[in-house]
Amino acid sequence: MLLQRVLFALKAHNVRYPWVVCSDLLLGPSSLSFRSHTCGELRSDHVGQKVTLCGWVQYLRQDLFVILRDFSGLTQVLIPQEESANNLKAALCGLAVESVVKVTGTVRKRPAGQENKLMPTGEIEILAQNLEVFNICRKLPFEMKEFVKKSEALRMQYRYLALRSSQMQKNLRLRSQLVMKMREYLCNVHGFVDVETPTLFKRTPGGAKEFVVPSREPGLFYSLPQSPQQFKQLLMVAGVDRYFQIARCYRDEGSKPDRQPEFTQVDIEMSFVDQAGIMALVEGMLQFSWPAEKGPLQVPFQVMTYNEAMRDYGVDKPDTRFNMKLIDLSEVFSSTKIEFLRSALSQSEGSIQAICVPICLLLSLCCQLPLLGNLRLQCAQLLESHGLSLRDPSAFHFLWVVDFPLFLPKEDNPEELDSAHHPFTAPRTEDTDLLLSEPHKVRGQHYDLVLNGCEIGGGSIRIHKASLQLHVLKNILKEDPSLLSHLLEALDSGAPPHGGIALGLDRLVSVVVGASSIRDVIAFPKSFRGHDLMSHAPDTVSEEELKPYHISIKCFEQSTSTRILFLE
Amino acid sequence: MLLQRVLFALKAHNVRYPWVVCSDLLLGPSSLSFRSHTCGELRSDHVGQKVTLCGWVQYLRQDLFVILRDFSGLTQVLIPQEESANNLKAALCGLAVESVVKVTGTVRKRPAGQENKLMPTGEIEILAQNLEVFNICRKLPFEMKEFVKKSEALRMQYRYLALRSSQMQKNLRLRSQLVMKMREYLCNVHGFVDVETPTLFKRTPGGAKEFVVPSREPGLFYSLPQSPQQFKQLLMVAGVDRYFQIARCYRDEGSKPDRQPEFTQVDIEMSFVDQAGIMALVEGMLQFSWPAEKGPLQVPFQVMTYNEAMRDYGVDKPDTRFNMKLIDLSEVFSSTKIEFLRSALSQSEGSIQAICVPICLLLSLCCQLPLLGNLRLQCAQLLESHGLSLRDPSAFHFLWVVDFPLFLPKEDNPEELDSAHHPFTAPRTEDTDLLLSEPHKVRGQHYDLVLNGCEIGGGSIRIHKASLQLHVLKNILKEDPSLLSHLLEALDSGAPPHGGIALGLDRLVSVVVGASSIRDVIAFPKSFRGHDLMSHAPDTVSEEELKPYHISIKCFEQSTSTRILFLE
Repeated sequence: MLLQRVLFALKAHNVRYPWVVCSDLLLGPSSLSFRSHTCGELRSDHVGQKVTLCGWVQYLRQDLFVILRDFSGLTQVLIPQEESANNLKAALCGLAVESVVKVTGTVRKRPAGQENKLMPTGEIEILAQNLEVFNICRKLPFEMKEFVKKSEALRMQYRYLALRSSQMQKNLRLRSQLVMKMREYLCNVHGFVDVETPTLFKRTPGGAKEFVVPSREPGLFYSLPQSPQQFKQLLMVAGVDRYFQIARCYRDEGSKPDRQPEFTQVDIEMSFVDQAGIMALVEGMLQFSWPAEKGPLQVPFQVMTYNEAMRDYGVDKPDTRFNMKLIDLSEVFSSTKIEFLRSALSQSEGSIQAICVPICLLLSLCCQLPLLGNLRLQCAQLLESHGLSLRDPSAFHFLWVVDFPLFLPKEDNPEELDSAHHPFTAPRTEDTDLLLSEPHKVRGQHYDLVLNGCEIGGGSIRIHKASLQLHVLKNILKEDPSLLSHLLEALDSGAPPHGGIALGLDRLVSVVVGASSIRDVIAFPKSFRGHDLMSHAPDTVSEEELKPYHISIKCFEQSTSTRILFLE
Repeated sequence: MLLQRVLFALKAHNVRYPWVVCSDLLLGPSSLSFRSHTCGELRSDHVGQKVTLCGWVQYLRQDLFVILRDFSGLTQVLIPQEESANNLKAALCGLAVESVVKVTGTVRKRPAGQENKLMPTGEIEILAQNLEVFNICRKLPFEMKEFVKKSEALRMQYRYLALRSSQMQKNLRLRSQLVMKMREYLCNVHGFVDVETPTLFKRTPGGAKEFVVPSREPGLFYSLPQSPQQFKQLLMVAGVDRYFQIARCYRDEGSKPDRQPEFTQVDIEMSFVDQAGIMALVEGMLQFSWPAEKGPLQVPFQVMTYNEAMRDYGVDKPDTRFNMKLIDLSEVFSSTKIEFLRSALSQSEGSIQAICVPICLLLSLCCQLPLLGNLRLQCAQLLESHGLSLRDPSAFHFLWVVDFPLFLPKEDNPEELDSAHHPFTAPRTEDTDLLLSEPHKVRGQHYDLVLNGCEIGGGSIRIHKASLQLHVLKNILKEDPSLLSHLLEALDSGAPPHGGIALGLDRLVSVVVGASSIRDVIAFPKSFRGHDLMSHAPDTVSEEELKPYHISIKCFEQSTSTRILFLE
């Protein structure tokens, strides 16, 4: 402690390096800093110590106290009242809120009865001896305490003020910690290699959701990929063995509301592994990185087949925090005389389903399970809005959904097949023969990870043989395989069996912290309509500046849905 | 060991989860995998064990051995010769090189005299008992051992094959490890927060090197930023206190050769810190993350002022691995009668400089120090090409260059001033008054980090007061401050003193591993001219696909320098 003080004094006198030579003594959030402690850490153990705090003026009270804030919390600073300290008193009393200062003083126990048990530093206060004003806050668009009442547009415009809230500070720090632990688990525990893959890539054929980036060569464009899928598979062909990346991905969802044009995924790929291996890896990773304050995670997670999920919940990402499963009563009513029930059963795929809701029983006649799945969630919301507690807000129900169909009928032409996920997913070994005869019956080695009814990740074991990949692309999906010739060629040059997963980091963190939108776990999100309201992006660019890219602006006729974008 | 085997057997029989329940037993690079060991780890300690290896067939020898490879190294597999193993023998002998297989067998000591001391696994071999062929390598563009002789274009086209080399595997793994240690140092030791900032941003005025990204709103464009500079300063205003990010950055250098349009920087920003604090942080980070095999790093690093660097080395990023400083002999010759020397001295800023090269002394007459700095490096190259050892290839000389001028005369108009680095750099406190009177004399709180003569990073303490920032933008740089109004507003709403640095990760890693190009430390680099030769990016996009972005292709007249791009 004495040594730490000596070092601090040396540093205060601009003596460089002592705190490096003895770096094990000055670590943590106040290392190398003007402060000796953060505003959230002082306790009665510190009484009598001379400390230096740096922070923002949260508010003044009775010309007697300045409440100082930093990311870690609040400390009460006592303004000295004796005549000899008049200058200091005047300076402290004159501080505008949100000004940034450095206060040096002595930690005192608060007088008996004045402790604040709701404040972690509520047992102590600092008797100020010195003040340095780093910056006066001259301009706030509105009072900080009014902040939460302001429109989201205004809060986005002054994002740097919104981020000062303790909730946003917690969200960003929890996200950083969670990712750090994931990295430790992958790198240090399981030997994964963090590899960065390009974001300036080639446009995927039909990749309508990919932003284009004009190059300086006329007519040639890069695109911003939706995921590093091709690169991570090529890394396996390259023998990298275990790859991960916290990868920035891009998706141009056009006029779809609540979109983030860029988002982050925890991207993982592994060679010489099966589906169970990837699932165990992800369970271990989440268990290892799970924030301690959220309670321990139990593994393994529940596993459910796609068919079970659809049958019992009417959805492929069921919220298993509450029951209210769909119950098929078709058998019970198989010989019913009741006309409308008989008519329902006589339809193709017609059935009679029930949801057992507390208090009543919903009977419905349905051939569309997703409709019922939706109804189940709406029932839950309705019941909760009437005070019935169905879903524990502190519970985290992870669930694997497996055995998805590999192909689904195309929406616009049900005679043809589309990939249920993507064309690189391997079929289940026992279904491989069906690829030639009845491809619609083939199940894929695909797994979705669901948390409290949100899909937070998905992955698969990939096809690693060129012949099989070619068959899927050419004969089943009727796509032009030449567009993926580099991948097919790679598979033929010694590709190991491999598989992986991608977790949506923004969504995962937002569920963990209980945020209503992923915007609350992103430092600088885009608005509802894809705008940065602080810096005004996207913005105009002159025709002159576009010349090197050989493009020019051309206003095509607007559909109403596009026009609406201007209203923001 | 026994337990590990039991677990492995259970796993081999598809019993899920035992290796998670006992996860502390099955960690490391072979966890959750089809293999029990990697191809690089077996030693004579393992003799007698039954093991399973997965890997690529490196080569076959005398129908007796298969050499198996993975990322970690090579293992010799002995092909059984007895009649009962004829099928296995035939299968092993028939393997095409670069095919991917799983071999199960028993570790044996090699017969005396057959050990290979150059091979880490050279004491042992595996007597094969079982073979599974995962994938046959059907197609290689050329023999792998010919690879290094092929043109770089071909090696880029088949990047996934180039990455199989042990050198590239080492480079990627060293990079991943280095970054992981940096993260541990920043997050776990010093309380930094990893915050992701947007890459779809607003175009910087005059940001000629920024890629534009058309949005679906006519005439509005995002841009891909060259660095998160504005965001990291806003995070400090937001009270995040300590930010870092391994940040993807973009720079469109047009026709400049050997460019990477996207690159990575270790981006750091800190509040309540001074220049010495940031420098100590970076020294500690590099020391902490430095690869053990490169020997320990000594801190503090050498510090040199900009003036000293220019005077002694004629360059602001001197290679201090060798001496040969410039020596100013102007004084000595001040009263010389020799005409050409007198003439040199009579010029404005004229001087007589010498470089003391081993064996001889170069005298030159110069008013351009950078020319001499270049000459010094060329001398060194020349001497080394003649066998003189000047620069130890295993030495790492870090150097801080400080006290740069804050402004430099504009190239096209020396009467006006430009920022030497960027307009956010704070002046040295003692020079602040000169900002009003003689701004060209002001030194900035800027620091460059130089390694073996390469600039690998730069940073500064930033201006945190709006009034000073406005003065610099408006009165000194004559820029329109309204373009940065959000930053100025932020500085006026309680900005703490702050500073930071950005290190060029690609360059740093390439110096550490001794690579001649940063392409050797990037998994999928662009070619010399910014192309992805494997996937053919950038690529054409149809006018139809451009319609949603309200742009169309327009071929402007080409300058010769742009034309040359087509030749690739």
